[in-house]
Amino acid sequence: MGPGPGNPYPEVIAAFGRPVLGHLDPEFIALLDETNDRLREVFRTANPLTFPVSATGSAGMEATFVNVLGPGDVVVVGVNGVFGERMCDVATRCGAEVVRVEADWGQPLEPGSLLGAHPSPKVIAVVHAETSTGVRNDIEPIGAGKGTALFLVDCVTSLGGIPLEIDAWGVDLAYSGTQKCLGVPPGLAPVTVSPAAVDAFVERSPSWYLDFSMIADYVTGGGVRAYHHTAPISMVYALHAGLGVLLDEGLEQVQERHRRCGERLQEGLVKRGFELFAHEDHRLPELTSVYVPKDRLPDGLGEADVRNRLLGGYGIEIGGGLGPVSGEIWRIGCMGHTARERNVTLLLGALDEILR
Amino acid sequence: MGPGPGNPYPEVIAAFGRPVLGHLDPEFIALLDETNDRLREVFRTANPLTFPVSATGSAGMEATFVNVLGPGDVVVVGVNGVFGERMCDVATRCGAEVVRVEADWGQPLEPGSLLGAHPSPKVIAVVHAETSTGVRNDIEPIGAGKGTALFLVDCVTSLGGIPLEIDAWGVDLAYSGTQKCLGVPPGLAPVTVSPAAVDAFVERSPSWYLDFSMIADYVTGGGVRAYHHTAPISMVYALHAGLGVLLDEGLEQVQERHRRCGERLQEGLVKRGFELFAHEDHRLPELTSVYVPKDRLPDGLGEADVRNRLLGGYGIEIGGGLGPVSGEIWRIGCMGHTARERNVTLLLGALDEILR
Repeated sequence: MGPGPGNPYPEVIAAFGRPVLGHLDPEFIALLDETNDRLREVFRTANPLTFPVSATGSAGMEATFVNVLGPGDVVVVGVNGVFGERMCDVATRCGAEVVRVEADWGQPLEPGSLLGAHPSPKVIAVVHAETSTGVRNDIEPIGAGKGTALFLVDCVTSLGGIPLEIDAWGVDLAYSGTQKCLGVPPGLAPVTVSPAAVDAFVERSPSWYLDFSMIADYVTGGGVRAYHHTAPISMVYALHAGLGVLLDEGLEQVQERHRRCGERLQEGLVKRGFELFAHEDHRLPELTSVYVPKDRLPDGLGEADVRNRLLGGYGIEIGGGLGPVSGEIWRIGCMGHTARERNVTLLLGALDEILR
Repeated sequence: MGPGPGNPYPEVIAAFGRPVLGHLDPEFIALLDETNDRLREVFRTANPLTFPVSATGSAGMEATFVNVLGPGDVVVVGVNGVFGERMCDVATRCGAEVVRVEADWGQPLEPGSLLGAHPSPKVIAVVHAETSTGVRNDIEPIGAGKGTALFLVDCVTSLGGIPLEIDAWGVDLAYSGTQKCLGVPPGLAPVTVSPAAVDAFVERSPSWYLDFSMIADYVTGGGVRAYHHTAPISMVYALHAGLGVLLDEGLEQVQERHRRCGERLQEGLVKRGFELFAHEDHRLPELTSVYVPKDRLPDGLGEADVRNRLLGGYGIEIGGGLGPVSGEIWRIGCMGHTARERNVTLLLGALDEILR
């Protein structure tokens, strides 16, 4: 129940047992195609260029940035947590001119401020679900008002957990991770790229490994697929299986399960006198941030000791705060297979036993 | 029996069933530390900065290049196959000045030519085992004569399969893949970096994801590890298990097994009148390249049809040629768990049944 990885679905672990085929084996290519079809369903997009980048979620961020931002290109970045900050770092390394639009940690970004920050940015980039704060940023109004800019969204902690409409909301580039609401171990970064973004690719990405133009010849080719790099076969099996579980349950049903668990957890915490950190209209159900109840810590114990007791005594991981809220908040995830109400009951019971 | 991925060891697949811990969980950190200790044993190095990059082998190439090569830096690259060419592409994207030293495909590089190609390169880069040709390049003399240059070696297809001495041979940066002679599915790129290479890191790598300075705070920290990106937990379990199997058998014993299988395969092919492609003193046991026996193809069938018959009828994958030798050679791997003499017997028997 940390900020991710969550527990994988049992079917995902079973899929790791599949024989390791070659990356050009027709049977593997068919499974990869089916995986990408499933990703399109979950992303709610028709983008042909939709596939898992062969690395973890942060590589998804880097991949989307390096393919569309070159030296001097202007990118407006929303910053209200660690992952918005990371976007600025990645964009700066591309040589892009970064226009920061900030909000306090725990508060949502103001879509109007992002839209008004620059007259003609090449890209507007926002984190949908800030894993460092538990805040949901409103992205639909940004997509509606983006004009000629490309809209780039971090969906690492939102995909599968809360409503997300890549096509209907005008998102041009999005990336996610497998280890959050998809219920798969970390290791891949699902991405989706609109045709407009494909048309705006830089001439040559600084990264060979993440060069979408080259990778597209492998993942979206017709009968013949050009070798680029060796796909991480077993992780693709795992993602394929996790998406299958999710779609069998139903995307809306899975989101409803996340919503119910988050609501139950947040109500349980408030009932116990805890103070939630994220702005109340923008709280993520899949990731709850809560102030450490310092007046209720057992004598002589710090907040990290409480987390260690949860881990050692109950087998429950929760996360601490990052950066400016280190030591100040806890981050509790209910994601993927972990998003079960019994887990909420267990955590609240464990906290009752540990805290004064 | 393609050029990789090979079959994983059964213990590796079993390890995928381990519970997915958090990347900051002390138990996971201990397992990662042990994995890196095992990598040091297999790489034959004492380098503290030895760990698996969270992506496939080609990302290992990119990672080693982007951390030491900036705009204008000179790199001498040996090119006698696809992966030497790829090094040039990656180095060019770093803005480096690339000095190419070539040999014909199927022939080894001449160490003296590499050492004499430039008076003071920052880096000399060579592929140890060229997966596209089956050729072993001699790297020991290059390390001995490198002077003040950093020596960077692609060990994707050599690590675990043939003798390799990172420290004794003066290698400063090396990367590998998990899916070849380590007997683990693709998904990680083990790397090792000498203290001299650490001292020569560029001020800021163009890649955030592959920035060794930042990753070092996670993988080589003391008690407290700084979060950089979410480690691919399950793949690390798999690598940990694969290295365990390898070291239990013994590094020399595993190399001997690869040597025996390669010899048996190459002798069996020659006995049947096939012509081997790679220079005879520089043939890899783990990857055999052989000319397609065009006069023995069944009527009306091309070389790809034969490969399809092997796959469909016998469950055996072998690889075709890449680039200039596409359609001209086959590439047959005996790597990791696949390096068993019974597999050689099976393949030779299957070829006897299919070919005229």
